[in-house]
Amino acid sequence: MKTKQISTLQLKQDLKYLKKQYEEYRGKGLNLNISRGLPCKEQLDLNAEMFHVLDENNCIAEDGTDCRNYGVMYGLSECIRLFSELLDIPSENIVLGGESCLNLMYDQFMRYYAFGALGEKPWSMQAMEHELKWLCPVPGYDCHFNLTEALGFRMINIPLLETGPDMDMVEKLVAQDPTIKGIWCVPQYSNPTGTVYSDETVERLAKMKTAAPDFRIFWDNAYAVHHLYKEHIVKDILKAAEPYGTTDRILYFFSTAKITFPGSGVCLMASGDKTIEETKRLLKLQIFSHDKLNQLRHVKYLKTPENIMNHMKDIAAILRPRFDMVDEILTQNRLYEDVYTWIKPDGGYFITVDSYGGCAKKILKMTEDVGVKVAIPASTYPYHYDPEDTTIRLAPTYPPMEELKEAMKLFCICANIAAIEKIIEERGI
Amino acid sequence: MKTKQISTLQLKQDLKYLKKQYEEYRGKGLNLNISRGLPCKEQLDLNAEMFHVLDENNCIAEDGTDCRNYGVMYGLSECIRLFSELLDIPSENIVLGGESCLNLMYDQFMRYYAFGALGEKPWSMQAMEHELKWLCPVPGYDCHFNLTEALGFRMINIPLLETGPDMDMVEKLVAQDPTIKGIWCVPQYSNPTGTVYSDETVERLAKMKTAAPDFRIFWDNAYAVHHLYKEHIVKDILKAAEPYGTTDRILYFFSTAKITFPGSGVCLMASGDKTIEETKRLLKLQIFSHDKLNQLRHVKYLKTPENIMNHMKDIAAILRPRFDMVDEILTQNRLYEDVYTWIKPDGGYFITVDSYGGCAKKILKMTEDVGVKVAIPASTYPYHYDPEDTTIRLAPTYPPMEELKEAMKLFCICANIAAIEKIIEERGI
Repeated sequence: MKTKQISTLQLKQDLKYLKKQYEEYRGKGLNLNISRGLPCKEQLDLNAEMFHVLDENNCIAEDGTDCRNYGVMYGLSECIRLFSELLDIPSENIVLGGESCLNLMYDQFMRYYAFGALGEKPWSMQAMEHELKWLCPVPGYDCHFNLTEALGFRMINIPLLETGPDMDMVEKLVAQDPTIKGIWCVPQYSNPTGTVYSDETVERLAKMKTAAPDFRIFWDNAYAVHHLYKEHIVKDILKAAEPYGTTDRILYFFSTAKITFPGSGVCLMASGDKTIEETKRLLKLQIFSHDKLNQLRHVKYLKTPENIMNHMKDIAAILRPRFDMVDEILTQNRLYEDVYTWIKPDGGYFITVDSYGGCAKKILKMTEDVGVKVAIPASTYPYHYDPEDTTIRLAPTYPPMEELKEAMKLFCICANIAAIEKIIEERGI
Repeated sequence: MKTKQISTLQLKQDLKYLKKQYEEYRGKGLNLNISRGLPCKEQLDLNAEMFHVLDENNCIAEDGTDCRNYGVMYGLSECIRLFSELLDIPSENIVLGGESCLNLMYDQFMRYYAFGALGEKPWSMQAMEHELKWLCPVPGYDCHFNLTEALGFRMINIPLLETGPDMDMVEKLVAQDPTIKGIWCVPQYSNPTGTVYSDETVERLAKMKTAAPDFRIFWDNAYAVHHLYKEHIVKDILKAAEPYGTTDRILYFFSTAKITFPGSGVCLMASGDKTIEETKRLLKLQIFSHDKLNQLRHVKYLKTPENIMNHMKDIAAILRPRFDMVDEILTQNRLYEDVYTWIKPDGGYFITVDSYGGCAKKILKMTEDVGVKVAIPASTYPYHYDPEDTTIRLAPTYPPMEELKEAMKLFCICANIAAIEKIIEERGI
């Protein structure tokens, strides 16, 4: 039932009851934080074997390289091969990185900024002539937006539809404006909405004409194997780009951050031949090699693509009850259909709630006032500005189940209160 | 005895004998490479315990942080403390990095390039107005020079004296030219000469007036604990800078590359308060955290500064026979005092030979022609241009002893031949 069918009197009674419930939380002295998208302890415990797969007699790569020493700048071949098979990307189009793929995205961005892309002027130099711009599907990932903001790119919001970024808008903008240098994409189980880009969206991103010859798609496929309910696989953009000769436009990132140990993982960038060649050349300025021992550790632990997929099933089994519970609490505690909405994603790490318009900040303040940090307001928008003030990213993966339950119940009370207060206000009574 | 006391006839006889020896190498079918400054297998074997200090029940930091998860962006406090005590630098002036300190130097350089130093214009922007310049003590480290070259800095050679860079020249240049943005320094057991900067040099670097407010000293203290014969400790530049208010000018780098496993190590940058604050702020764009498991592994393995010093003694015991042998072969096989000279360093990783003027390239070509790569010609100079064509960096640490011996004997034959040929040519006969 929607609130338009409900009398203001009834809404006021609801509010009274809800506020009483909310006031009860004041006395509880809670101090919870469910805002962070981290793996939980149970997920990390799955990887115990990782501590035991390498030792002093077992640290030589298949080509004879002693992984304890310098060398092998672009990654161990067996580690590249494992990811090549997992993601169906040719080995020669992959360069490995260390630690996490945010690192790798930052590095690639800085290369374009300082050295330029395939012979084009460095972005730092172009920025002296014109303000540069960047497309940001919203809601999206704050770490992406933080980088483009820090480097002075004007960020343009692109609505994220059920099929991915609004491609009519993207195509129109990039065709006419050479100062638009790229777009952030999380194409599969998008952070935070769980959106999987449609085949058509991928095809159009690969095919579209861009006024800027150095337009780049930062394709952050962070959740490529992070299925929860159904197994969606986003269309292969590197293959889609081949017939159009645009593979060098694609910078495909993947990491084991949420497969093994975040921050101690292995990550990769894949792209067209020319871009990989350029990156390899510039990488020599920066490293001798990433941590090969950790690469070998990952190969010996993860072994095969099939084994990785089984491991992801074990992770999903840990995460599903969390997503189920959040979905259930959101369902059971919503007073009226229009006070908030959400989509239960098929994979990834987040559930996005759309609060009643103009209420998101207020809801998050209310939960914080009684000791529960649910999310960072507007963190999923460039400049931390959510024009409709509705998007709230929930991160069910990390907190203990009991804390998650408690926090979610409170959240629903606040979301109901804020919406109903707003609706009453809008009715002008 | 010097060649000036020797008749040309005698020199020609020497040459005939030397060339006969050289020709014998042609038949040997050698394929050796002693050019790389890597740790040898025996040195790496010392660290076997590193594979066993962490496991699934032993991966929690002292503050309760689960090192398997995200978090702790600037480094584990126990790991920072260990290096703080080892190097006598306050913990709050240290930020940890991952893998190797070349990485960290590159990152810091790129920060200045893209974001500027403490409110000054980014170097990328300044470079649009004037050519920027960089001071390079020579001979020096090719990885340093490669970075400044790639970013378009004009590199100015500064002679490296026994006391460090020629400070009269440095002071004069930096005082008058605001486009000089910095200097590369390896202050202790300098790569390649083994020079330890004198106290006066350190003091003058800290004290000197610079026309550029964003002049920076990249202080790559890579060999801070790498003693071989005597234990020199270069004067503490951060402390020296304090009375002059120039601590933010210093970027102090250190890593475990040649203590534990190169490329899989832990490294650090230390600087003044403002620079550390700035770096921490910008680091958020790049990482969530470096590999904390590897940081904890290093703490559990290295334990205390005393233990590190004992470990370095074990390494020195492995390396000394190599340095002794090279020194002995250079001594025994030198026909005349002026055909080449060298200094046996007290620490570090290299021995530098000064060949007879104009002979270095020729010598290295001669050894390569019979299958032995001794060094990369002029790699220790900016733009790979050694104006006197004399410097040859020998790297005794890595090759098997027998190969090192064979290569060094050949090297001496070639160095004698090239010098004597040149001397005869100079005599005009």
